[in-house]
Amino acid sequence: MARIITSTEIQEWDKYYRINILNKLSGFKSASLIGTLGKEERTNLAIFNSVMHIGASPYYLGFILRPTTVDRHTYINIKETNHYTINHVTSTIYQQAHQTSAKYIDEVSEFDACKLTPSYIDGFKAPFVEESVVKLGLEFVEEQLIRCNQTRLIIGKVTKIILPENSIESNGDIRLDHLDSTIVNGLDTYYKAYFLEKLEFARP
Amino acid sequence: MARIITSTEIQEWDKYYRINILNKLSGFKSASLIGTLGKEERTNLAIFNSVMHIGASPYYLGFILRPTTVDRHTYINIKETNHYTINHVTSTIYQQAHQTSAKYIDEVSEFDACKLTPSYIDGFKAPFVEESVVKLGLEFVEEQLIRCNQTRLIIGKVTKIILPENSIESNGDIRLDHLDSTIVNGLDTYYKAYFLEKLEFARP
Repeated sequence: MARIITSTEIQEWDKYYRINILNKLSGFKSASLIGTLGKEERTNLAIFNSVMHIGASPYYLGFILRPTTVDRHTYINIKETNHYTINHVTSTIYQQAHQTSAKYIDEVSEFDACKLTPSYIDGFKAPFVEESVVKLGLEFVEEQLIRCNQTRLIIGKVTKIILPENSIESNGDIRLDHLDSTIVNGLDTYYKAYFLEKLEFARP
Repeated sequence: MARIITSTEIQEWDKYYRINILNKLSGFKSASLIGTLGKEERTNLAIFNSVMHIGASPYYLGFILRPTTVDRHTYINIKETNHYTINHVTSTIYQQAHQTSAKYIDEVSEFDACKLTPSYIDGFKAPFVEESVVKLGLEFVEEQLIRCNQTRLIIGKVTKIILPENSIESNGDIRLDHLDSTIVNGLDTYYKAYFLEKLEFARP
């Protein structure tokens, strides 16, 4: 039997119950670590589940940033340095990646606290996560303030892609399950991907 | 060995190769069918891989709409009726769901062409997908035109949630793998989710 839940019932739910179920009903998401550089070259790392594709030419990605009613170092650092990295979370580091969501004091780098290794490529002003397999380097392009709840869509242009040799097939296919990218549902539940099928371009 | 790819190399890639790999590198996404009603109550259904969580109070979801340089019925219908549905794609209908991406002529409903069943709940001006297990009914709230490439972020408020009885645990947990929601990578490759672990709220 199906259950129908209305807005009225949703609004009556306890806050944490509501956040939990509604984040999960939004669907499966990719798990990504965003790396930035702050004051005094201090590294910052935070997990996000909202990385989205915006366009392929140029290659733009977006992510959702919660309201800036508290300091959000990822945002402050991106606006300051113009650079950030998006690193796929693998099944060997998802616990450490999740731990970056803890509220550390300003002086602590999540890289140190969560035992992940910052790595750099020449001239790029943000740290990549050494343990990640697919790593993207971005330059900030645009932000949109969402009027209904003051969240922000942050958009960047990917200028560096780092991934293992021979992981791209001749037609541009790439198997993220073979590269061990993980999936998150809601804010706390991690999954791996199990391949079903690659379908052909659809025609009537 | 790692391979580093730069913007210059990305821009030199063949268009279809580039679209394929860059959509896949954006990460795993949820697969959703968006249902709307058009002129003369004609039903419309289209697959999207960009549904995102915007906020839990009220419950807002967003999705990315490609530039409106051609007629996009989903967009036209949402602006006209103010209502739409987001239906999780399951492993029993992902082939039919993918087929909705074919360019059918205006007079053909993707429900008919792809053998999916429209269903309605009283007063809601958009069709749900009967075969889907998790179904959300939304009212249009806001759109943001993304300046860098003329795509749009479309945001709606969820006013109806339809899901099986007893699928929500007492703490608000829900196991989307048990509800058979699928994952898509890029525009053509479908996956199921394999549960790894639910982690605790992270503290320093």
